Amino acid sequence: MPSRARVVVVGAGFAGLTLVRALRGKPVEMTLVDRRNYHTFTPLLYQVASALLDPSEVAHPIRGIVRPIRNLEVRMAEATGVDLAGRRLLTDVEPIDYEFLVLCTGSTTNYFGIRGLAETAFGLKDLEQALALRNQVLRRFEEAAWTADPERRRMLLTFAVVGGGPTGVEFSGALSELIRGVLAKDFPSVYIRDTRILLVEAAGHLLGPFTPLLRESARRTLTRRGVEVLLEKQVRAAGEDYVELVDGERLAVGTVIWTAGVRAGDLAAALPGDRGRGGTLKVESTLQLPGHPEVFAIGDLAAVVQGGQQLPQLIPPAMQEARHVARSIHRALAGEPAEPFRYADPGMMATIGRNAGVAEIGPLRFSGFPGWILWLGFHLIQIVTFRTKLVVLVNWAWNYLFYDRPVRLLVRAAAHESQARAAPDAQLD
Amino acid sequence: MPSRARVVVVGAGFAGLTLVRALRGKPVEMTLVDRRNYHTFTPLLYQVASALLDPSEVAHPIRGIVRPIRNLEVRMAEATGVDLAGRRLLTDVEPIDYEFLVLCTGSTTNYFGIRGLAETAFGLKDLEQALALRNQVLRRFEEAAWTADPERRRMLLTFAVVGGGPTGVEFSGALSELIRGVLAKDFPSVYIRDTRILLVEAAGHLLGPFTPLLRESARRTLTRRGVEVLLEKQVRAAGEDYVELVDGERLAVGTVIWTAGVRAGDLAAALPGDRGRGGTLKVESTLQLPGHPEVFAIGDLAAVVQGGQQLPQLIPPAMQEARHVARSIHRALAGEPAEPFRYADPGMMATIGRNAGVAEIGPLRFSGFPGWILWLGFHLIQIVTFRTKLVVLVNWAWNYLFYDRPVRLLVRAAAHESQARAAPDAQLD
Repeated sequence: MPSRARVVVVGAGFAGLTLVRALRGKPVEMTLVDRRNYHTFTPLLYQVASALLDPSEVAHPIRGIVRPIRNLEVRMAEATGVDLAGRRLLTDVEPIDYEFLVLCTGSTTNYFGIRGLAETAFGLKDLEQALALRNQVLRRFEEAAWTADPERRRMLLTFAVVGGGPTGVEFSGALSELIRGVLAKDFPSVYIRDTRILLVEAAGHLLGPFTPLLRESARRTLTRRGVEVLLEKQVRAAGEDYVELVDGERLAVGTVIWTAGVRAGDLAAALPGDRGRGGTLKVESTLQLPGHPEVFAIGDLAAVVQGGQQLPQLIPPAMQEARHVARSIHRALAGEPAEPFRYADPGMMATIGRNAGVAEIGPLRFSGFPGWILWLGFHLIQIVTFRTKLVVLVNWAWNYLFYDRPVRLLVRAAAHESQARAAPDAQLD
Repeated sequence: MPSRARVVVVGAGFAGLTLVRALRGKPVEMTLVDRRNYHTFTPLLYQVASALLDPSEVAHPIRGIVRPIRNLEVRMAEATGVDLAGRRLLTDVEPIDYEFLVLCTGSTTNYFGIRGLAETAFGLKDLEQALALRNQVLRRFEEAAWTADPERRRMLLTFAVVGGGPTGVEFSGALSELIRGVLAKDFPSVYIRDTRILLVEAAGHLLGPFTPLLRESARRTLTRRGVEVLLEKQVRAAGEDYVELVDGERLAVGTVIWTAGVRAGDLAAALPGDRGRGGTLKVESTLQLPGHPEVFAIGDLAAVVQGGQQLPQLIPPAMQEARHVARSIHRALAGEPAEPFRYADPGMMATIGRNAGVAEIGPLRFSGFPGWILWLGFHLIQIVTFRTKLVVLVNWAWNYLFYDRPVRLLVRAAAHESQARAAPDAQLD
């Protein structure tokens, strides 16, 4: 038996997991590298940030997920670069040799160098950020409970969500529910009417990729739930207690949540070649790195252009690209050339809190309760394991019936956690 | 109506919560001060550390718990001292005036100044420590998966639990289950037989306060589950990869878990007066601070001597003391003097993992499965809210049926969490 081809997959997001599943039992030896020991179900991160779900309900240990895949080993490490000539992935632990390399390390928050933003704003792209945001919201309310000065209290209780895409819409809706449904009861001494949620969007409408009908439905629903939607407003600076708009207006804001941009993760910067939007890696139509047919880049990390447009950084393209790469590796082993990738758009959806959502599937449009039911069902089906699904369901049902957020804890792992030198789970920002 | 007496309670542990509940609706205005926004159900912390439970299953938001208590407000702050003459509690936010002050800030890990211990060992006294320990255990396995050197791998996979009291016994039993039941499946490439769990105890037996029969039952059960029980061994130094015993033996150990001592929290050091064991505050038989009848100290913070012996730092004395102080404050408002406190011992129990526990209730002794069922029932009843109970039950049932730890995530809140200057939830150690 000839030795089996070594496939190294970097990143255990939706792309990476789809790929290793597609290559299960195939004549390859896979190594899956991730800097975390868990996969994150990113569509529900905003629910962790709004204290509805526990971390373990949106994250799942990678080793548990890939346990049935016998031709795979997992290595926890941060990928730091690629020795393309020597065909070795460089990591913060040891290098790993490959015959095929698939890069799918995803994207991270893009602050575009806006003054003060990286230092003071909260992102919502990974579990650590979601927990930090949850803690910040709760801390601001605790601070407000101490504050006699009404102006300072209003500042502490004003939250500016920047970016009117799905993440911004979903989080501002959930934040409104958290505050009106739960914190209003927890903080009798604080004037809940001092609380403001601003949703700031540069374009003239929310949810850019959706049809005008659904955009308008989302805006109406949010407004009805107490979110102030500010359209055609751009942020040019931010600080601990303010944001400044391009038109010169300065808003007293205690927390800025930035959902208005993503960029490719740091690994992209360590690679040669042309860039797409946000530092993404330009790839051939076959998803191969130009000049390196043995290296693929997919998912949020890659700039895949189709019909003159770069594909959106969403889960469906990432998963379809992963399946395409699995087929390409299979073809390469048989001596066949790679084929171009074609994206089939399955539609999209977003939720705006309890009972309201929007969805576009082919020619169909849904909003309000039907949109929400679609969103709920789709995501419940997607969640990785039965157990997670069950506990998520219990939590959702509880929240729906009793309107009480169960997990509003201000907590973090402390002690030696932070002292562990160069540990793979060290802080990311 | 005369203005109502101001009662300030510091610490929302079992003592603090019992006290404010006992004073609900009484003619006092209470302020409950805690540096955290949640109460911790400490008996189950070891289950967080062994990746069985989520933080939100052993912690609950204080404001949610005390919501029905109308004559109470909550303030999140770290108490830094007491101005006894001016009758003001000093905090890291603002001082708070009191007419009655009840100190119940509990205890923390005592490293007794043993060389290297505070820097490298993991405690198990609060939620942050439990999460840090969980992350450490998982990280050690991830490191071992990278390690070809068998000696180094054995070091990484050796865990020394120091202290053979209930916490040490419970955690070493749970750790054995985590490793044999779950991690053995997650880490096929790592030799699980390289894993060692040492339980190190200075006395000649485990579970000192229990009868010899139950001590021996616990030792046998642990040994059968793969825990090596080392009796009459004391630690004199510890480092990143070893512990050193008083007899000169040096063990290659990747993680030291220290459950062998507690001391009063930092607030005690800021107060005058005599000390009991571990820096606890000596109080009168009425639980009042000598010379300050308006100040009470109870729970783990206080040295309450009865029959010549200091009461153990356990939940039952703390709760009984809290009820006594509530009565004393009520009597003081009526102009009556405080009465001495009398402790009624309700018995004690500990668990050693699945299906095994020990319990002493009055003249009765239970071990094995009956001891475990008693432990389980007692703790389920105690857990603060129905929801928590329900989710804990789902998790336990899942674990029991499928032997899969759901929450083995290496995660912490990052980003701005750590940058928040002087935030009340900043790191504790």
